[in-house]
Amino acid sequence: MDRTERVELANICLIYDEDKILMQNRTKDDWKGFTLPGGHVEPGESVVESVVREVKEETGLDIQNPVLCGVKQFPIENGRYVIFLFKTNQFSGELVSSEEGEMRWVKRSEIAQLDTVPDFDALLQVMESDKLWEFAYTIEQETWIPQLY
Amino acid sequence: MDRTERVELANICLIYDEDKILMQNRTKDDWKGFTLPGGHVEPGESVVESVVREVKEETGLDIQNPVLCGVKQFPIENGRYVIFLFKTNQFSGELVSSEEGEMRWVKRSEIAQLDTVPDFDALLQVMESDKLWEFAYTIEQETWIPQLY
Repeated sequence: MDRTERVELANICLIYDEDKILMQNRTKDDWKGFTLPGGHVEPGESVVESVVREVKEETGLDIQNPVLCGVKQFPIENGRYVIFLFKTNQFSGELVSSEEGEMRWVKRSEIAQLDTVPDFDALLQVMESDKLWEFAYTIEQETWIPQLY
Repeated sequence: MDRTERVELANICLIYDEDKILMQNRTKDDWKGFTLPGGHVEPGESVVESVVREVKEETGLDIQNPVLCGVKQFPIENGRYVIFLFKTNQFSGELVSSEEGEMRWVKRSEIAQLDTVPDFDALLQVMESDKLWEFAYTIEQETWIPQLY
């Protein structure tokens, strides 16, 4: 019995330094606005190695000891999109931006004034809580319903 | 561009109570021996809800606040098998066994004397460490190579 689904695997990383977090002003049309760096897990790639690689590509920084802090998922055709959520305050190197979007250190108190991607607050809530581990969407009657677990 | 893979999604739960952990003497031929309870994430199902459901089915216990403590993965044809690792010491109800295998509380000092499933020690190490988040296999020249991240 085939129990597989079509799954797209990705990662997101919250890099923080005291009261500041590192955000990307994402330019791609499919998910535009201020968000966190991240990208795809390549075929055969380790999940942890994938987030280290993506952060390097998008920010120039080398992160150490990323901590798995949750999972986000939403339905796609015949399967789902699964994003592994990591966080760390350990990093080295010099910050640069990539074509994916300008990187910027943002004070937490200033996040509310930014044009963030949809549901950014809920994402951050799951990543920073030690009681919540999942941010999942279901679709009911063509309506997307977010839920935190 | 299709970035999806064929992925089988599953969960495992470490239920612990002071120096004891709850183990299942798994009877299925494909992964026989003492291991932890768990099972598949059903299509469209929340990952957290899936582990609560599987523990209930296999142990009779209701777990509360399962903590995401890692991910295990290994290659399958055209994709991978991904297991979300959870742990909790909060549970209620009465312990029962299922046809999947007899459940038994095992002292940590007694684990070494049991016929555990392959690589059980590495699995437990990742689940209990706050520095390790992934137990991944790669295949090189037909040899399975385990690695902890």
